[in-house]
Amino acid sequence: MNAVRFENQTLLYLDQRYLPAKEVWRECTTLHQGIQAIKELHVRGAPLIGIFACYTLCVALECFPGDKKGFFHQFDKAICSLKNSRPTAVNLAWALERVWRKARSFEQQPVSEIKHAMREESKQIHAEDALLCQKIARNGTSIVHKGACILTHCNTGFLATGGEGTALGIIYKAHRDRKKITVYVDETRPLLQGARLTAWELMKQKVPCMLITDNMAASIMRKRLIDMVIVGADRIARNGDTANKIGTYSLAVLARSHKIPFYVAAPFSTFDLSLKSGDDIPIEQRDPDEVRKAGGSIPLAPEDVPVYNPAFDITPGRLITAIITDKGVISPPYGRSIKKCLFSDV
Amino acid sequence: MNAVRFENQTLLYLDQRYLPAKEVWRECTTLHQGIQAIKELHVRGAPLIGIFACYTLCVALECFPGDKKGFFHQFDKAICSLKNSRPTAVNLAWALERVWRKARSFEQQPVSEIKHAMREESKQIHAEDALLCQKIARNGTSIVHKGACILTHCNTGFLATGGEGTALGIIYKAHRDRKKITVYVDETRPLLQGARLTAWELMKQKVPCMLITDNMAASIMRKRLIDMVIVGADRIARNGDTANKIGTYSLAVLARSHKIPFYVAAPFSTFDLSLKSGDDIPIEQRDPDEVRKAGGSIPLAPEDVPVYNPAFDITPGRLITAIITDKGVISPPYGRSIKKCLFSDV
Repeated sequence: MNAVRFENQTLLYLDQRYLPAKEVWRECTTLHQGIQAIKELHVRGAPLIGIFACYTLCVALECFPGDKKGFFHQFDKAICSLKNSRPTAVNLAWALERVWRKARSFEQQPVSEIKHAMREESKQIHAEDALLCQKIARNGTSIVHKGACILTHCNTGFLATGGEGTALGIIYKAHRDRKKITVYVDETRPLLQGARLTAWELMKQKVPCMLITDNMAASIMRKRLIDMVIVGADRIARNGDTANKIGTYSLAVLARSHKIPFYVAAPFSTFDLSLKSGDDIPIEQRDPDEVRKAGGSIPLAPEDVPVYNPAFDITPGRLITAIITDKGVISPPYGRSIKKCLFSDV
Repeated sequence: MNAVRFENQTLLYLDQRYLPAKEVWRECTTLHQGIQAIKELHVRGAPLIGIFACYTLCVALECFPGDKKGFFHQFDKAICSLKNSRPTAVNLAWALERVWRKARSFEQQPVSEIKHAMREESKQIHAEDALLCQKIARNGTSIVHKGACILTHCNTGFLATGGEGTALGIIYKAHRDRKKITVYVDETRPLLQGARLTAWELMKQKVPCMLITDNMAASIMRKRLIDMVIVGADRIARNGDTANKIGTYSLAVLARSHKIPFYVAAPFSTFDLSLKSGDDIPIEQRDPDEVRKAGGSIPLAPEDVPVYNPAFDITPGRLITAIITDKGVISPPYGRSIKKCLFSDV
């Protein structure tokens, strides 16, 4: 499974808006299309939008002629627009900056060479992300015991990364390791990434799962049906504060109240060490109609009712039992441990 | 506003499944129709289904001939079916038992007299419920300060009671008292009683409100946007444990974690003093398709995904700051205070 493909300089993506009803593949040929696909969540998931944005950049600049000054002008403009397409996940900026640096390192070469280097760097980021997922899954092995019942939120699998996922990567590995796990899936309102995407992925992979509405999590925790919560992340500040899909903070508070461990799984590229705390993470506010309507058209509420619709919330580091990364498991106090772990092999 | 009308021995109800898009009124003429209307939530809300069930009983038995033994046989069967139509809210059984006692007290009279007494008792229960709402609203006055931001869950207003509501009754009164309140409305998945019904009611009454998905509640509590939570109840055990719409327990835990007062508003008829604790309250499990599909047809999840769909959860009394009733405000410890308050004027 792979939700984004870049072959023969053609960028294809699985339009996730139509899942699970239909598997619709689309081609992205322009910057505008790529930005639209990110903004409207045709493609989503922090690591995957980073990868997709890099490929979009390649596709968008492919036809640009040999004038190098003009090329870099377009290049910078395109990167800026792509970075601004969604504000919260830091992987987007991280991946684009990596391609930017690569291109700049080739600036003495002809434009065709620069374009080639950009494509190779983008593919590299994609391939590396699949490896990061594997490492996260391996590092997460110790936290999942036999027979564990795991609650997860949103979608963090094949549809969100360049590999098999972050939180879901750990879950898939535990399933392959025959740990007889059960996964409770929060539906994740308003856009139902849990119900539409995670449940679909888990059923495809034959992992036993049970769908719940977000407001049932507390109740099943109280019934002792949940052994641990594992979620992904969109951006992690250097004190461990974590931005993730709206509803994550709620789960973290509920997990703490029920003495259930709460884990975040993310690659190093999700950390933003320039930020002291979660207060500095920008939170995207989205269209009220995402809450008011189902599938963009069926009314679920009065059409003019005021709506508060933040796409993410911040979970303070103090509520996070550990952060499972490709570089190891990071435990509190995060002020020290994050830096130490991320820079240990540099 | 009134969601159930009984005039000239005709029972009409507003079919709440179509709100807010359409106001569809239906007539109930048989026991079967009445039970279906309760089971499928055409009519819902703990106090209102009690009232509606009594009227259904009147309508169902209206055409029964004068044979008294046969009449009481049908009568007992009908009461039993109506009681079993939904298991959690105790008001249903309470109201039906009241009509049963009234009918039995007329058992020396002709069947036509018994029918008349049943109708009068049902209307009396309806009228009294409106008064109970007024008393709850009055008793709740002191908890709502000027400028309060109140979070509520599900629907507890005109569409759930014989009057202007329990939790919403308190809210309407605070609004009429010009306290400049703002109401945050949980959408209340899966059946969206908050988004479809509460938001609709509040907008009709011009009460400032803001719709959120259930998983946003924790986040807005952390931002200090919420001063208090007020919810209704379907059944309250004698230790204060409260069954209410799924998601209520979650709010109670979150409110406690954020040091926000959490109130339950309910009439005396919602208390079930035969139950020692919430563990004894039966919790209705509903059709998985309520979670899997929107409006019964649009797929939101894989069609065969396993679903856990309890309609209610139990909030332990220890998480409830106070219970606002028609007889006064009950504070912990509930073991004593509930009995004392409910029997104070008997």
